[in-house]
Order: sequence, then C-alpha cells, then structure tokens
Amino acid sequence: MAVVTKRLKFKTKANGSMFDITPLIEEELSKIKLSSGIVTLFCVGSTSSISTIEFEPGLQKDMPKIMEKIAPKDGKYDHENTWHDDNGHSHVRATLMGPSITVPFVDKKLTLGTWQQVAFFEWDTSDRSREVVCQFIGE
Amino acid sequence: MAVVTKRLKFKTKANGSMFDITPLIEEELSKIKLSSGIVTLFCVGSTSSISTIEFEPGLQKDMPKIMEKIAPKDGKYDHENTWHDDNGHSHVRATLMGPSITVPFVDKKLTLGTWQQVAFFEWDTSDRSREVVCQFIGE
Amino acid sequence: MAVVTKRLKFKTKANGSMFDITPLIEEELSKIKLSSGIVTLFCVGSTSSISTIEFEPGLQKDMPKIMEKIAPKDGKYDHENTWHDDNGHSHVRATLMGPSITVPFVDKKLTLGTWQQVAFFEWDTSDRSREVVCQFIGE
Repeated sequence: MAVVTKRLKFKTKANGSMFDITPLIEEELSKIKLSSGIVTLFCVGSTSSISTIEFEPGLQKDMPKIMEKIAPKDGKYDHENTWHDDNGHSHVRATLMGPSITVPFVDKKLTLGTWQQVAFFEWDTSDRSREVVCQFIGE
Repeated sequence: MAVVTKRLKFKTKANGSMFDITPLIEEELSKIKLSSGIVTLFCVGSTSSISTIEFEPGLQKDMPKIMEKIAPKDGKYDHENTWHDDNGHSHVRATLMGPSITVPFVDKKLTLGTWQQVAFFEWDTSDRSREVVCQFIGE
Repeated sequence: MAVVTKRLKFKTKANGSMFDITPLIEEELSKIKLSSGIVTLFCVGSTSSISTIEFEPGLQKDMPKIMEKIAPKDGKYDHENTWHDDNGHSHVRATLMGPSITVPFVDKKLTLGTWQQVAFFEWDTSDRSREVVCQFIGE
C-alpha cells in the first residue's frame, strides 16, 4: 500500500465551462506502480467543483443553465458586500456541488461507466489557471 | 492495510426511485478481513447518484419532488438534441448530487447515525440493472 | 500505511448555521504520525452536510438563502407526515449536498486553497450537539 500525490494543471474558461480531466487522471495512473485503490480528485479553491458527467456538448450547456436557475449570476449575494466582487454565485454553486470526488480503480483502470467522465466545473467569473490534487491510495 | 473491491448489483425502478444499499455494504463488510477504514461507493453510469438519507417513505417522495423543481423532466435540455433521448434531467440531477460517497467504518461497523442509510438514487427514465463499486480500504 | 479515526465534537445553531471545522482537523493531523494521505470527514446524522467554502460572513448568509429557495422551510414534505415533525427541508438539503468530503493532505498539511475552509452545515431546526467522524488514511 502506498500514497502517490500528483497535481493536475490546466486552464479554464469563465462562467460555467467544463473540463474533462479523465485523460489526465488516466495518464497519471498509467505512470505509477499502484494497481487497485482509490483516486481522490480535489479542487484547490472555492469557486469550482468536480463531479462525473457524460461529457458531450449538450450537457455542457445544460449544467450552467440549471446552476443559473439555482444561483443566478445577477442575484444578490452578501458575499459581494464583503469583498465588493462579482462571484457570490460562483461560491454558492461550488459549495453546493462539492469540491471533490473519489473514484475506485481496479487493475489500472478507473471504474467509470462507458458514458461517464470526471469533469471539472469552472464557476468563477474570469478565465483561470487551475490545480486539482489527484491523490492515489492503493496497492 | 489492504484494498478489497466488490460490486453491488440490483434492479431499480425509473424516475426517482431510491434503493437502500446499506444492508448490501454491511454484508460485504462482514465477509472481509478489514476492521477499520473507508468504503467508497461509486455509481457506474451517469444518470444515478449516491448519498445518505433517513430511508423512510416520506423522503422517498420528497427527494424526487425537489429534483423535479430543480431539473424538471419536461424541461428543455441540449443533451436531448445531441442524442434525441429523454433523459437530460436525469444527467443533470446525477451530476449535481454526485456519483459517490465515502463512509468510514470502525470495528467492522459503518459510522452511520441511527436514522441514516446509504441510498442509491435512480434518475433515469427506464427501469435499470445497476452496479455500484463498493471498495474497502483499511486494516 | 495506517488508519487513524478521530471524532470531532461541537455545538451548532439551528437553521442553516455554518461551522468551520478546519482548525479541528488540523489539530488532529498535527497529533498523529501520518504525513500524506486522505482525511474523510463524515456527518453522523441525516440533517447536516459537509463541503468546502470561503468561510466569511457573507456566504454564511448566502448558502441558507439558496437552500431556502431549493427546499423551503415552510414547504410541504411527506417526511413530516411520516413523523409529524418539522424538518423535511433539513433532510432534503442534507441529502442533496451530501454527508462527506475527502481531503488529501501532503507533508502534514491539508491541500486546501488559501480562501477555502472545510465547513459543517447545520440544516436541522434545533440547536444540536454534533459529531463528525474524521478518519485519516495514509503513511
């Protein structure tokens, strides 16, 4: 049993873009000696989320639309009184969805479904350089 | 320390049914040699979720009602333009809630509260045969 | 590799209060011998949640407001017919957000962002004494 910590780095587009991080995770998994265990994907920062999704263009529009209904960009947020910024909705969306998921892997393969990818969700209001901790624990 | 991977298999009813998988997890836990650690429950597929809930008939109606408010079955989803299917809302609900939870266990017992069960949520629009990865890591 | 289980205990205020548990986790991490791995934070009970957030006063008002929109306190819940109580909305909110998160740590430090804390969300309708399982797995 061992712990292996990697950091995935990529650039995102503002306001609800999604980024498929599955290939990045698979690449790291192929390089390490662990065969079975879990990988934890954790967003560093409080205005983005991670979940799984069928990564196709339709849902890339649907998810931000639903989030806009739940926490509208032009809503009134007390967070914006604290900092005089414009991303109260980004924080609320990120906290609601959550910053991390944990995915089992077996025989060097993630246990995802055929139409299921691990996606990063950018809720902030400017393009960002992002970092996701990708930590494997297993044997 | 060791990793033990099991697969829970069960049938679900379409459109928001819940399934209490706690007894299935407890049965697997009773059969393995680990005493303390975590169990990760991971939905294979992108139209179902896992969380904890007090598993009683009232909440089995309340959860789909709230999800219907957030992402209505008859809403307009770009996903459905991609595939000409009818389950855009199923995908959105699944991604919002998330595909997995991780539950610690101690002395062969899950650390759940008295009124807290691990539930699988079927958001898809037809009855399904489902698989949940149930992976224990511990000692 | 080892498993170390701690229990965080604290008191909460009813109806959407947030509690920053980051210092409690960091204190436990400083006392154990593990250097790298994951910590799983798990709510014992079905009317509270854990996520990360920028823990500042504005968002402490924004999160309950958004949750009130999703699952209003005065809404009609079948759960309340089952038990004749008043916390249907508390259960729905807790299940939607989820009971646990998993945070990697490296060199004795949680991999949180600068403005990111681990928060406990009390959705129940009375002040409570709460317990969160805080389980470290690592080396």
